[in-house]
Amino acid sequence: MLIVQKYGGTSVGNIDRMKNVAARCLATQRQGHQVALVVSAMSGETNRLLELTRQLQEDPNDREVDVIISTGEQVSVGLIALAIRAAGGKARSFLGHQCKIVTDSSFSRARIVSIESAPIKEALDAGEIAVIAGFQGVDEKGSITTLGRGGSDTTGVAIAAALAADVCEIYTDVDGVYTTDPNMVPTARKIDRISYEEMLELASLGAKVLQIRSVELGMKYGVKIHVRSSFSDVEGTWVVPEDAAMEKVVVSGVTVAKDEAKITCEDLPDISGVAGRLFAPLADGGISVDMIVQNQAYDGTTDLTFTVPKGDRKRTVEILKDKVPELVGKDGERVSYDDEICKVSVVGVGMRSHAGVAKTMFQLLAAENINIQLISTSEIKISCVIARKYAELAVRALHEGFGLSLPPSERVGL
Amino acid sequence: MLIVQKYGGTSVGNIDRMKNVAARCLATQRQGHQVALVVSAMSGETNRLLELTRQLQEDPNDREVDVIISTGEQVSVGLIALAIRAAGGKARSFLGHQCKIVTDSSFSRARIVSIESAPIKEALDAGEIAVIAGFQGVDEKGSITTLGRGGSDTTGVAIAAALAADVCEIYTDVDGVYTTDPNMVPTARKIDRISYEEMLELASLGAKVLQIRSVELGMKYGVKIHVRSSFSDVEGTWVVPEDAAMEKVVVSGVTVAKDEAKITCEDLPDISGVAGRLFAPLADGGISVDMIVQNQAYDGTTDLTFTVPKGDRKRTVEILKDKVPELVGKDGERVSYDDEICKVSVVGVGMRSHAGVAKTMFQLLAAENINIQLISTSEIKISCVIARKYAELAVRALHEGFGLSLPPSERVGL
Repeated sequence: MLIVQKYGGTSVGNIDRMKNVAARCLATQRQGHQVALVVSAMSGETNRLLELTRQLQEDPNDREVDVIISTGEQVSVGLIALAIRAAGGKARSFLGHQCKIVTDSSFSRARIVSIESAPIKEALDAGEIAVIAGFQGVDEKGSITTLGRGGSDTTGVAIAAALAADVCEIYTDVDGVYTTDPNMVPTARKIDRISYEEMLELASLGAKVLQIRSVELGMKYGVKIHVRSSFSDVEGTWVVPEDAAMEKVVVSGVTVAKDEAKITCEDLPDISGVAGRLFAPLADGGISVDMIVQNQAYDGTTDLTFTVPKGDRKRTVEILKDKVPELVGKDGERVSYDDEICKVSVVGVGMRSHAGVAKTMFQLLAAENINIQLISTSEIKISCVIARKYAELAVRALHEGFGLSLPPSERVGL
Repeated sequence: MLIVQKYGGTSVGNIDRMKNVAARCLATQRQGHQVALVVSAMSGETNRLLELTRQLQEDPNDREVDVIISTGEQVSVGLIALAIRAAGGKARSFLGHQCKIVTDSSFSRARIVSIESAPIKEALDAGEIAVIAGFQGVDEKGSITTLGRGGSDTTGVAIAAALAADVCEIYTDVDGVYTTDPNMVPTARKIDRISYEEMLELASLGAKVLQIRSVELGMKYGVKIHVRSSFSDVEGTWVVPEDAAMEKVVVSGVTVAKDEAKITCEDLPDISGVAGRLFAPLADGGISVDMIVQNQAYDGTTDLTFTVPKGDRKRTVEILKDKVPELVGKDGERVSYDDEICKVSVVGVGMRSHAGVAKTMFQLLAAENINIQLISTSEIKISCVIARKYAELAVRALHEGFGLSLPPSERVGL
């Protein structure tokens, strides 16, 4: 088999852990497999480098920041290659520009366009372990780019796709994807198998195990992803195409996101095009809007409520206070916001064939006297915005209520 | 004018010093010049990275070490580019693979083969300050290489040659090249102008201001080098082609090197080819031999004495003990060594036209009762190996004796 192993920052966080990575990939190779590694920067290194840039400029130039922070992975690949050699193996490091991980020029959040797999295959065929820098690429002009937080996951899956690898193992400091955050709910269970679609929703909704883009790529190229711990040998979570067994599970996971703020515009004229006119300047400002709800009032006015990333809240309110008077002929006092919210969500491909999940969710929250402020649904998820202080209570209630602390086979008759 | 400024590790050692570099190069640009910078790693960084590699392997693979240590300069160029932008300027960083500083594949001590100056010129013509990583290059396969300790000097001069720059300013933590080490001799004077040949001898003999290779390149391509302090505005030392005025100065500088050891092979048969047979295995072992002296004895035997870098002394003795018995039919007891030596040298292009410099040097040492163990001369330098304990005494005596504490114009009638 050809196996891609991606190791995160904590898995290569110090010299001893690097030796552990070397031992693990050599053990895999000795079982007769070809092994390509993708590695992150040592934990803390990217933040250390970012801190240096911020001492110079509050909003530093993205191209130069990428030059600087990509060194974290560069040091890691060199050290891991040395660790493998020290353990008696053969290894060769590859940087983004050496196996031509070509991306667009969106510095700090670039997307991979192509990968030249030939140099990596050459190394593998020579019996070497290829040690590839995660997170980084080069644009067409040869400038260094980075893929955004968690970008090494994406490098891992992209390399697996380019090499047509049999599996992409994502090694991290937890032993898989859980039904919810185990720090919040002690009865959270590790999920054995999950579909790309569910994983995509979970990642979008705040579960931080995999970068969303890596799941998208896995789905697009059919890469089997195995999320597991670098500190143990137990099986982790397989992220794979949906199958019949998965549909029997109505709810796979519960998530909570605390990084959004709620914005409300009241008393807008209820005429066509109002929402479009309000959201156009936000889109121009690069602010992504989530969970839009419009209420129609009786007096010909309407309220519009939506959420934005908390970091964009201040700018959103400023832009709207500029625009709302044009629309309603009044001052901007009608724009209000609430930072003290959270979004709890339940996800599961089984929802497609099971009615009543929404009803159950609302009942479970109501039973705890939690008021629902906003609701949005997709085919496989339901999200509710609630007051932030109820976050933990809501997650626990939903986790128990949907039977997620039981093994999937026992969650009958929901 | 087109000016290349090279900043060493102490000059970019922290964020404040980087701001100082930005201010300095912007001031130069505002005077109407085009400016290309070459920068080293922040002081201490290369050693920090080397220490990490040594925790994995005692003698780590050179290719991977270069991948790791080249990140020091990569971080510096990004930060300096940000510092220039923060100060209101325009800047763009260049790594070895981005302006194609192609070297041979001698990792850790590579030599520059060619530089693609077009991308740098493009940046300069756009009014940007080009910030180029020193010390690093790429070989023809795209592997990262480094140029050895002090390699950023060489990058600076090579970039100046490639751009046909008017001057290459080497910024360091001292304000120029001195007649001798000012820490040893308080009356040492800064040299205003010195020829490439003299600088080459001084660098070879232990003056650490410039990497030898950078002086060779400067001489080959006629690059005017200005060694100066990044912490002041005073003129430093110009390293330039020899001119008539320089020849009037008999001795330009005094150096001392303490990093060699003396090896003696006694009672060798005085037949042709002995020296060749002894030195062949040393050359094969990559040991560079300096200051060879052969004494002929009356009984048909000969003694051979020479110096090697102290780090190679142990290996040299081992190799010789293997070979000497073959040559003399005895055991290896005839090989002895002495680590407690030093080499004091005087350098000056004026020696070509002034007789008696050697005589004066020997008299000055004799006057201090310092015994000379080995002597070697070139057209513009005389070196003597003496007991190490006399190093400071000898340097001071020579510095005073040759009038180096006086301005050149007053050093008449030597």
